[in-house]
Amino acid sequence: MTTDNMNTIYMETVSAPTNIACIKYWGKASKEYNTPINDSVSVTLDQADMCAVTTASASRQFKQDRLWLNGVEEVDAHTSKRFRACVDSIKHLASDRIDPATGDILVKKEEWKNMYFHISSYNTFPTAAGLASSAAGYAALVASLARLMCAKETFPGELTTIARQGSGSSCRSLMGGFVAWKMGGEKEDCSDSFAEQIADENHWPEIRALILVVSDQKKDTSSTSGMSNSVATSELLRYRAEVIVPKRMQMIEKAWLEHDFETFGKITMMDSNQFHAICLDTVPPIFYMNDISKSVVQIVHAYNEWAGEIRAAYTFDAGPNAVLYTLQKYAVEVGALMLRFYPGHLSDYISNDIFAKEIKEFQLDERLVQAAMKTGRIAKEGDVKKIYYTKSGPAPQTLSAERSLIDTVTGLNTYNRDY
Amino acid sequence: MTTDNMNTIYMETVSAPTNIACIKYWGKASKEYNTPINDSVSVTLDQADMCAVTTASASRQFKQDRLWLNGVEEVDAHTSKRFRACVDSIKHLASDRIDPATGDILVKKEEWKNMYFHISSYNTFPTAAGLASSAAGYAALVASLARLMCAKETFPGELTTIARQGSGSSCRSLMGGFVAWKMGGEKEDCSDSFAEQIADENHWPEIRALILVVSDQKKDTSSTSGMSNSVATSELLRYRAEVIVPKRMQMIEKAWLEHDFETFGKITMMDSNQFHAICLDTVPPIFYMNDISKSVVQIVHAYNEWAGEIRAAYTFDAGPNAVLYTLQKYAVEVGALMLRFYPGHLSDYISNDIFAKEIKEFQLDERLVQAAMKTGRIAKEGDVKKIYYTKSGPAPQTLSAERSLIDTVTGLNTYNRDY
Repeated sequence: MTTDNMNTIYMETVSAPTNIACIKYWGKASKEYNTPINDSVSVTLDQADMCAVTTASASRQFKQDRLWLNGVEEVDAHTSKRFRACVDSIKHLASDRIDPATGDILVKKEEWKNMYFHISSYNTFPTAAGLASSAAGYAALVASLARLMCAKETFPGELTTIARQGSGSSCRSLMGGFVAWKMGGEKEDCSDSFAEQIADENHWPEIRALILVVSDQKKDTSSTSGMSNSVATSELLRYRAEVIVPKRMQMIEKAWLEHDFETFGKITMMDSNQFHAICLDTVPPIFYMNDISKSVVQIVHAYNEWAGEIRAAYTFDAGPNAVLYTLQKYAVEVGALMLRFYPGHLSDYISNDIFAKEIKEFQLDERLVQAAMKTGRIAKEGDVKKIYYTKSGPAPQTLSAERSLIDTVTGLNTYNRDY
Repeated sequence: MTTDNMNTIYMETVSAPTNIACIKYWGKASKEYNTPINDSVSVTLDQADMCAVTTASASRQFKQDRLWLNGVEEVDAHTSKRFRACVDSIKHLASDRIDPATGDILVKKEEWKNMYFHISSYNTFPTAAGLASSAAGYAALVASLARLMCAKETFPGELTTIARQGSGSSCRSLMGGFVAWKMGGEKEDCSDSFAEQIADENHWPEIRALILVVSDQKKDTSSTSGMSNSVATSELLRYRAEVIVPKRMQMIEKAWLEHDFETFGKITMMDSNQFHAICLDTVPPIFYMNDISKSVVQIVHAYNEWAGEIRAAYTFDAGPNAVLYTLQKYAVEVGALMLRFYPGHLSDYISNDIFAKEIKEFQLDERLVQAAMKTGRIAKEGDVKKIYYTKSGPAPQTLSAERSLIDTVTGLNTYNRDY
């Protein structure tokens, strides 16, 4: 028996992390299934500073699927291919929803397909900043729907094959720690293209990440159209995907498992540069890094050279923002170096107050400052808008009912973006 | 009999052109012989605006080889490997110098090796601007010495094998028009790595070049150290050299011979971008293009898209300066477009007064201006320091005695740079 009635609204709220790739995904093998031409691997970031929060709700009273993003309804969302792929695929994995208190069946597995969904989602960081907001967003969408419908995977990683149909790299945000996305390519339904955890977030707890949100007036090329152009026009891309990436994947996974920051950092930087090299080899060329991004690259190289070892490793996604991986023991030094050359005076310029205080008080070695100045970088406010300080973190988390973004009575969005 | 005596000073003065590659040379196969890992091809530019002028003189009164560059003596030049390679190799090809009026032998071929050389050279354009000044300089050095010593090649292109030992790309400046530098690699002495004229400067007289000297505070990575790092660290470079360049060489030579600007321009732009992609794939990455360079790239793509055909093609060497190839019929439009987005008010901002007047008066299509503005470029003075307008031109030229830079009595430099 089921207690489901016309007015009941079932809901689940989750938060999901962003992830920043060390071996980059660039190029689709199948546009239909959204599978990549090469394996990739990323660090899942902690959700304290940056995450997507999503409530998925279902009810017999709902007349159609509806989606609110950052408080604003996306009126055509329910017809979009990406959104539909996620919702409809999870319906296929749905099972009975049971009241944990009574053991009663609330919704029978076959009833989900007769329901519509109201979904509300927001990012705790600016969407426009280009910080993998779609990865966090689709991971949260898939995780919230999967929890709501008590989805049961028929093979490990099946949910990640659904998430990648929403946004490729979002599949890596369904797991914590260090996560690989296998390109697959053997199975016709592309079910062998899934994410796999290499090590969880506790394996290398010393890993830290600094994110420099770099100012940029220009509009970015979207990654979907950019990578499509690269596949069509860059002769170097195929060689990268077929010959170079497989070797790098092996090396970087080994480095992560062995806590070998030197190798991890070296490959991370090389692969970021190679990804942007491929963008430049595209017709017409795509420029994601700007002169500010480049100055970060040069300062990081000057820093590592001064240190005589790799203490920081930069990586850039499809935009000018820099992500610097480092180790806890060097994080304050790295932060102080960045603050020295990319100063900012706003109170929330550094995401973390304790870290902000530590880096302001840290005395940089004068030879390091001199070495960094030789890159030609002159400290200037405004080139970086914000610095996030974070670390490796866990998979999507279930949030309590009071974090819900959907009204339990009306089924409408309750979230209002206040910035 | 010879009329040579202790005090006679023999001299020859030549001018030599710069050249701007369409398929780029990047990477040495032999550091000793200065041979490349791939073929390259370039347009030799007219010497009216930009050239190197060099006087090579020899006398029994000289006590050692001496070199003046832009009026300043380079005291250690005579011991430099590059300089010695040029001077000593040409001595091996020397023949009798004969008085054209009397038929008397002035210097017997075996006497050259007992003489020292005083050489003075200057560029008619700023050396620091990064406009292939070393290519013009070494071509002028080799051409002046070869004329002075009446050098006889033992095989066609032998002088270019000497010039490349001074500066790789200078071998292409010994010929006019469209010139390929063959990588060679079969012969142990590298004598099969020489320049070869694909077509002379009269084959495609409509070809024009605009050179935008782009401002840049930063110091460049020298091309010698840059390409050495690329060979050592870029996995993409080998693939480019072995697989991609051979195809492009065939296509671009055919395009040039057939006056096919569409293909010529397309390959030129792709190869420039790929060269800079390789630089970015180098460890540590090398950045030659800056945000101003990139904006030129984007405006040229917007222009060609607006036109529905390729009317302009950019290429960038190891620095931020843009060279735009175009056809005579579009040159004023291209110039006007550049002036619109890279304005300058100095009287010599445009190298050519007639062209300057034409482009100032030209009415750009408003839709073109709108399309170019969509790249995000905002017209700003100072981003470009000077615009040269030039065309394809001939091989080094012999200049008359009054252009000599060496005093006929003292054998000392007479040139004083006045800027």
